[in-house]
Amino acid sequence: MEELSRDRRDHLVQDFAQGFIRHCGFSVQGMERGRLVSTVEIRPEHRQQDGFIHAGVMATLADHSAGYAAFTLVPDDCRILTIEFKINFLYPAFGDRLTCRSRIIREGGQILVGESEVFDARDGSDVMVAKAIVTLASVRKDRVPPCEKTT
Amino acid sequence: MEELSRDRRDHLVQDFAQGFIRHCGFSVQGMERGRLVSTVEIRPEHRQQDGFIHAGVMATLADHSAGYAAFTLVPDDCRILTIEFKINFLYPAFGDRLTCRSRIIREGGQILVGESEVFDARDGSDVMVAKAIVTLASVRKDRVPPCEKTT
Amino acid sequence: MEELSRDRRDHLVQDFAQGFIRHCGFSVQGMERGRLVSTVEIRPEHRQQDGFIHAGVMATLADHSAGYAAFTLVPDDCRILTIEFKINFLYPAFGDRLTCRSRIIREGGQILVGESEVFDARDGSDVMVAKAIVTLASVRKDRVPPCEKTT
Amino acid sequence: MEELSRDRRDHLVQDFAQGFIRHCGFSVQGMERGRLVSTVEIRPEHRQQDGFIHAGVMATLADHSAGYAAFTLVPDDCRILTIEFKINFLYPAFGDRLTCRSRIIREGGQILVGESEVFDARDGSDVMVAKAIVTLASVRKDRVPPCEKTT
Repeated sequence: MEELSRDRRDHLVQDFAQGFIRHCGFSVQGMERGRLVSTVEIRPEHRQQDGFIHAGVMATLADHSAGYAAFTLVPDDCRILTIEFKINFLYPAFGDRLTCRSRIIREGGQILVGESEVFDARDGSDVMVAKAIVTLASVRKDRVPPCEKTT
Repeated sequence: MEELSRDRRDHLVQDFAQGFIRHCGFSVQGMERGRLVSTVEIRPEHRQQDGFIHAGVMATLADHSAGYAAFTLVPDDCRILTIEFKINFLYPAFGDRLTCRSRIIREGGQILVGESEVFDARDGSDVMVAKAIVTLASVRKDRVPPCEKTT
Repeated sequence: MEELSRDRRDHLVQDFAQGFIRHCGFSVQGMERGRLVSTVEIRPEHRQQDGFIHAGVMATLADHSAGYAAFTLVPDDCRILTIEFKINFLYPAFGDRLTCRSRIIREGGQILVGESEVFDARDGSDVMVAKAIVTLASVRKDRVPPCEKTT
Repeated sequence: MEELSRDRRDHLVQDFAQGFIRHCGFSVQGMERGRLVSTVEIRPEHRQQDGFIHAGVMATLADHSAGYAAFTLVPDDCRILTIEFKINFLYPAFGDRLTCRSRIIREGGQILVGESEVFDARDGSDVMVAKAIVTLASVRKDRVPPCEKTT
């Protein structure tokens, strides 16, 4: 299997953390073909009303990381869009850092499927606190509908 | 059916927007028993690499709003935790404001189920861009595991 | 909006109940563009170990009905395949008949999304016992991979 | 970790294949604490209109097997109910036999979460054709609502 080129890899690491993802403080920790590891240092703005890490933080991390795991498998001129995802929150998350391990379990054609496991670092051990299945579409860049954003 | 008291309502509106939710800029627009409408004005930090509104923004809004719709149905000493959710992204979202309409479709006992519809305001019309089903647990406050956060 | 032709409708009603679906005893009760109502009379072989209607019966009904609601919207030479679905079981089902109401909430392009609500007939009233979201692909018949079944 | 007793194991193997599951022809192939392997020989009545194995067969197998994997972890007087599940169909299934491998990834308290992988036997190799996440509730037998079935 073809390896991920250095250029492609560097591009994807940069591309990963824009807009909402930069706002959330997520970054790439590792990447290979079909796999991606991402991480976030938890700050007060990641928590919810009871002090736990918000489900939305874990969901965003699981979705985005699966999407970039998919980017490692498609041609450079393709964009990845999330069709849908489902996430189970297995145990409350309250540690200092989340790590997400994503891998693509179905490729070929325009539909890719990834799964993401989110781990909560606490007291020196990592506990799997959430697991997601993410369905993704690969779309040639010139077929992505134009985004008529105004802001 | 018992109405939502003014005090409870005011408390929930305040309680809604803490931590990650305040960081995301979400707020309550309306609330009644078993239903909640929330909204967010879209800023650059809500978008993804192609300029669309990030799936994680919609997922967080859908999850959190369903959770607070559930809060309107449980006793004051109960907390709501998300067990899992699933969200479909129906059309790309790129407008200036999202609105989320959540309602509880199953209550009774400790498991509640909500659904959330996310609408994208563009050119004067609202388009449903995402739909989620959210499974929630109602847990008495004294049984929520203590959150040993360190940050 | 173009109406469903009589021929197409008759074809789909026949096509609906083959193989596993005939084995399960499901049939079409009503159909219009983007919507389908199906039903099953409950027999002992639809129940599980505690006498309730098996989750698999409701899941199959929800999936298949959404698929045929999608068939009403695509050209005659397209096949519908299920990409994924998610179903919540809201209340135990134990009545004499299930009815499933499916409608397509996203169309256009190759991805369709449907939702299905399953109702349990008991004591003269219908209770919604399950709700599903179903993601479907429309594929031109000549592009469906050949099925090399041996049985 | 306590092993599964011979009696409990024998009981669960028998209990597995009643009602709808017997109608579908599913059986247990292996079982240990938190894990279950099930199988079905494919017959014409498991297929859909294009000759593929019906999504409902795979969904039922994935759900039921995760449920019985959960039964290996709870006291004898508990029943397992499916709260919800989500399943992705990764590749078309058309072989002679399906095998489902289920394992519980979250236990403790009343909510268990399992995942099921469905493999299609074809040409001597097993291909993973579907993957599901299943959320289950463990309920003490005397608290399961009475099933007032009439058939």
